[in-house]
Amino acid sequence: MRSILTLLCLVIVNISLAQVERVEPPFWWTDMKKTDLELLVYGDNINQLEPEFSNGITIKKVVKVANPNYLFITVDTKGISSGVAQLSFKKGRKTVSTFDYEFKKRKEGSAERKGFDSSDVIYLIMPDRFANGDPSNDSTPNTIEKANREHQGGRHGGDIQGVIEHLDYIHELGATTLWSTPLTLDNEKVYSYHGYASSDLYKVDPRYGTNADFAKLSAELHQRDMKHIMDFVPNHWGISHWLIQDPPDQNWVHYWEGGENGFKRSNYIQTSQFDPYASEADSKGNMDGWFDTTMPDMNESNPMVIDYLVQNAIWWIESGDLDGLRVDTYPYNDKKGITEWVTRVMAEYPNFNIVGEVFMHETAHIAYWQKDSKIGAIQGFNSNLPSVMDFPLHDILPQVFHQDEQNWGDGVFKVYDHLTKDFLYPNINNVLIKMGNHDVNRINQEFDGDVEKYKLALTLIMTLRGIPQIYYGDEIGMLGDKGKGDGDIRRDFPGGWEGDVQNAFVSSGRTNLQNEYFDYSKKLLNWRKGSKAIHKGKTLHFAPHDNVYVYFRYLPEETVMVVLNNSSKDQSIDLGRFAEGIKNHTKGLNIINGKAYNLEQPLEIDAKTGWVFELK
Amino acid sequence: MRSILTLLCLVIVNISLAQVERVEPPFWWTDMKKTDLELLVYGDNINQLEPEFSNGITIKKVVKVANPNYLFITVDTKGISSGVAQLSFKKGRKTVSTFDYEFKKRKEGSAERKGFDSSDVIYLIMPDRFANGDPSNDSTPNTIEKANREHQGGRHGGDIQGVIEHLDYIHELGATTLWSTPLTLDNEKVYSYHGYASSDLYKVDPRYGTNADFAKLSAELHQRDMKHIMDFVPNHWGISHWLIQDPPDQNWVHYWEGGENGFKRSNYIQTSQFDPYASEADSKGNMDGWFDTTMPDMNESNPMVIDYLVQNAIWWIESGDLDGLRVDTYPYNDKKGITEWVTRVMAEYPNFNIVGEVFMHETAHIAYWQKDSKIGAIQGFNSNLPSVMDFPLHDILPQVFHQDEQNWGDGVFKVYDHLTKDFLYPNINNVLIKMGNHDVNRINQEFDGDVEKYKLALTLIMTLRGIPQIYYGDEIGMLGDKGKGDGDIRRDFPGGWEGDVQNAFVSSGRTNLQNEYFDYSKKLLNWRKGSKAIHKGKTLHFAPHDNVYVYFRYLPEETVMVVLNNSSKDQSIDLGRFAEGIKNHTKGLNIINGKAYNLEQPLEIDAKTGWVFELK
Repeated sequence: MRSILTLLCLVIVNISLAQVERVEPPFWWTDMKKTDLELLVYGDNINQLEPEFSNGITIKKVVKVANPNYLFITVDTKGISSGVAQLSFKKGRKTVSTFDYEFKKRKEGSAERKGFDSSDVIYLIMPDRFANGDPSNDSTPNTIEKANREHQGGRHGGDIQGVIEHLDYIHELGATTLWSTPLTLDNEKVYSYHGYASSDLYKVDPRYGTNADFAKLSAELHQRDMKHIMDFVPNHWGISHWLIQDPPDQNWVHYWEGGENGFKRSNYIQTSQFDPYASEADSKGNMDGWFDTTMPDMNESNPMVIDYLVQNAIWWIESGDLDGLRVDTYPYNDKKGITEWVTRVMAEYPNFNIVGEVFMHETAHIAYWQKDSKIGAIQGFNSNLPSVMDFPLHDILPQVFHQDEQNWGDGVFKVYDHLTKDFLYPNINNVLIKMGNHDVNRINQEFDGDVEKYKLALTLIMTLRGIPQIYYGDEIGMLGDKGKGDGDIRRDFPGGWEGDVQNAFVSSGRTNLQNEYFDYSKKLLNWRKGSKAIHKGKTLHFAPHDNVYVYFRYLPEETVMVVLNNSSKDQSIDLGRFAEGIKNHTKGLNIINGKAYNLEQPLEIDAKTGWVFELK
Repeated sequence: MRSILTLLCLVIVNISLAQVERVEPPFWWTDMKKTDLELLVYGDNINQLEPEFSNGITIKKVVKVANPNYLFITVDTKGISSGVAQLSFKKGRKTVSTFDYEFKKRKEGSAERKGFDSSDVIYLIMPDRFANGDPSNDSTPNTIEKANREHQGGRHGGDIQGVIEHLDYIHELGATTLWSTPLTLDNEKVYSYHGYASSDLYKVDPRYGTNADFAKLSAELHQRDMKHIMDFVPNHWGISHWLIQDPPDQNWVHYWEGGENGFKRSNYIQTSQFDPYASEADSKGNMDGWFDTTMPDMNESNPMVIDYLVQNAIWWIESGDLDGLRVDTYPYNDKKGITEWVTRVMAEYPNFNIVGEVFMHETAHIAYWQKDSKIGAIQGFNSNLPSVMDFPLHDILPQVFHQDEQNWGDGVFKVYDHLTKDFLYPNINNVLIKMGNHDVNRINQEFDGDVEKYKLALTLIMTLRGIPQIYYGDEIGMLGDKGKGDGDIRRDFPGGWEGDVQNAFVSSGRTNLQNEYFDYSKKLLNWRKGSKAIHKGKTLHFAPHDNVYVYFRYLPEETVMVVLNNSSKDQSIDLGRFAEGIKNHTKGLNIINGKAYNLEQPLEIDAKTGWVFELK
């Protein structure tokens, strides 16, 4: 009897302590296509209270889970007005806790927002390593890891303000779209700078700035007619994430028996997603294994997790006014779950674009993941993912441009041969093609710092089908060797920090060689902005002879001819072989050197040179 | 006036000289599904005569072409009787020439003949290099190139009789199917031994024997429950072929302007067959270019050429009692033409099998060519070709077995990874997998003569899905380096010639090492004959750890487990990880060493060892 009394007292005490700590999403919109809103409410013993909305807003369903600190509430937003409504939590008639919940009106045209596409050039940055606009936030009281620029794997202090201050540089270069690696809070003790172990999916890391700064970044980009891609990580959250520290139940994270915190490393066998012979053990090991010790694998077969991730993405698209998402480690996600996720996000934004990191090395394996893939259809699978990345093209770039002589299959023939697989993609023009990223050797490292090889590769990437992407610093010849650690391929951009000995953001601060890299890049990228034939033209190419690759991008009204002399000798090229592409044109304006060429004469082109002609 | 008289005289003289030199096919059958028979008649000025059949056989159509020495006659064979009919050629009422044309009855069940399949193991020989059964035909009066065994690229004297005499050897080895490179007449001056430049598509080269010997070879194979595959070459004939020497018109061969005899070498760009960006010039260069100077490219867009090739194939299938065709240089053929060819041949023999040499290196590129390919369907193409060859698997074998340590993606992981692409094939079990062939380095050369690597590779090839094929001499460890010339990979089989210092056809004639190769091969191949799980079981595999690859082939009633320890260390393997494959089995009979193993104990397996277990 005494024990029951004690228990009662405890319950009363608990209720009196029950306070809402978090509601996620923290606010929402009145006019989404999907009118059911799933609220996650978190607070001590919150599940002993009854939620109620003011303003006549209907709660359709309340779900309780094993952990008493959670309530999951389905709210009907159909026809509601914008403004702040009060969400009350009651015990009987008594209101124990309240939360002001705002419903906003969406920006006009938000649902029709257009994603990045093949008219764009993407500039990828790591925000910690690009520019430090606000040294006061390099370390903050509530974040564990403090700035230490001496440490390759430490936080260096780069932030959103730094990016904003150098948008003119990126704009001058001719990139049209910014993709930054994740900016949400990563409160791990070490290596927090990469941001892929998020501690809060609704909050920008204070060492980068605020959520308002994130929205400001979009606004500043849009002012420059540029676009903003957010890096989204549904597969794994950081182990320090508050929800993972106090999980709703056992169904949000894949816990493995025997592992510390339930850890078991992924086997990284992405092919098990479609391999008809794969064992269940291997499939599960890929999808449900953890990407790293600090990155618990989310259980995306739990519909609550998917609801959470869908709304989180929409929340950032709306509040951050985004033009695209890049989704991390795509084939590590639960296949059904991630398909539902992308389908629901795209349903809200039919003209949007999302590119998945399918980090595989076979065209067929990558094409499998693009929306409406015929390869996927072999297994009755449609990913609904609009865009993927052409990793195999990136894989061959170093070999291609190192090979001066064209033996069978060597040199630029590798590119020609690679493109013969393009028909495997349902939408090749919505495939991202890249010079590099934050996970691999820098492209200029691969080219041993040879600017001519960079120019050739850039000319290729900027004139092929698809959406080109470069990695910050490529355009000034930055080197970086993955063998020396991730930090080496993620060096600080020179001039991003006060007191840097060099400021490569301005011409006068760059070395001659850096200017050679930059000026070539700037010319090509800015020219590309206006070339519809490159943005959406068809491709016609000719089997390379003597390590010279000639191809055409064309529309009825516009033709571009690209000539890549990848050999180590000057060549005189009879253009007669390319009559199908040249048609009745007689002149070509070489946009690289500004000179006009008579196409009826042999083309004299120097060794290791790429030229781009607008045909007249 | 005088000139007209002269002309008349000449015509009269010509008519009196007109004689039928050839009728092709030289005989036919009464009971084919397709009842129209297309006869090619060749003779001086034959087109000035009117053909007529005896026995009430109807001639439906007569076509004349530019060359007066040809008549093309469509004969209706519906309901006709077997026997010899007289084909007469008349001028008015006068019979100028006659030809006895035989219509045979087909062998019972001929239409239903079953082709080779995944229950078979194919043994590929080059007949000139295997065994010389009849030294009297090494050189013959009417063939140009004479035997010269000293010359690597010369004729060495091997023949059909030699093959027949050693069928017991092939049977003892455990191969079930013979594929010989072409046996039809190749009357080129040099390199005639390879047979790929045929001078007569209806005649066995007399240096190999007679058409009757060819049929006898089939009979001898069938007596041993073995099968016979003929090598068929529709893309190109030899330049010495009588028809090419006196062509019907300009439409049988692709003649290129400016080239000697109309020669222009193929660009060998097979990808242009499906590359959506390929120029017409490159596509034409591939399909219509000549495979070599002595190999004029046949114009398979000419329906007459296709008729000729279809009937030629059927003629050999019937007269040679064949179990399959291997078709040379498949993607060099006219795409529509070869599709019609294979469709028509398979329509006559729905259970037959034809494998095309799609000598490409990307699974998607090869899968494109198999009947009902979903990859082909992307372009609305269906090849109707039942079988293709898994060249990429062969490509990786040397790397796989040379890599003792498994870094990411190395060693047997390459095989595992390769198999993840199998779903691209519409019918993976009808794909030929090979240890080598007559165009590449010998597999034992690739393995530097290391018998353990051979054993591992053979164990793999003999237990994977598909139809294994070995190349004569692999089974005794023969070496051959393509870099030293084709002859080096096509050495004479020791013991095939009288007076050879060694006779490797018999155990006592083989060295210990050769017997090690042979005995292992014999054990595995003969065991394979009885394993339904290998012939048609499903596959389950596990991501390799430590360079050990474990996979299962299984049917409801039969399970085989294969363990390949490709590492350079002895290993103790906990089989618990493979529970999905082992299921409730507790014992495994190791067919390599004959011992029984307790599957509940760790498996102790030596370095570089492959074991095959029947699970009990």
